[in-house]
Amino acid sequence: MITLVIYDITDDELRNKVASFLRMKGLKRVQKSAFLGDLSHSERVNMEAGVRRLIKDSKANVQVYPLTPACYSQRSVIGVEMSYDEEEFLV
Amino acid sequence: MITLVIYDITDDELRNKVASFLRMKGLKRVQKSAFLGDLSHSERVNMEAGVRRLIKDSKANVQVYPLTPACYSQRSVIGVEMSYDEEEFLV
Repeated sequence: MITLVIYDITDDELRNKVASFLRMKGLKRVQKSAFLGDLSHSERVNMEAGVRRLIKDSKANVQVYPLTPACYSQRSVIGVEMSYDEEEFLV
Repeated sequence: MITLVIYDITDDELRNKVASFLRMKGLKRVQKSAFLGDLSHSERVNMEAGVRRLIKDSKANVQVYPLTPACYSQRSVIGVEMSYDEEEFLV
């Protein structure tokens, strides 16, 4: 299932850790605080458990949305493609 | 259709304008850069046109995802509920 993960994490270091973890799980950055990718049910469960472990009691909010192919095909992108290459090196 | 709007907007003033606009359109803030709400097809078209007008050629990326009730009911929220009350006053 195509899965969108969005996060709001106050601490810079933790935010980078979560981004790095999501990338490691095969998700692709689509915004500064949003990752998207195709995950099986067990991959999703595993990813969520990892995120939960990482954030523990931190001031963080992570939301995971499964998207059907129909939903995904109806998404709109307005504006410019942002580049996140620099941040990749910081993580 | 339940609609999720996520944005990545560099300019503070423009970001606040977009947040304010989305709120005016009946969407509810669920993260610092994410709004959610139920929109009809014409409301969605109208909202997207308004966002497009606001951001023009700015360094901004806005993504709109329609969610079926089944997708929405399968969303997960990990971590704490964040408060955005202070920002409401700034907008």
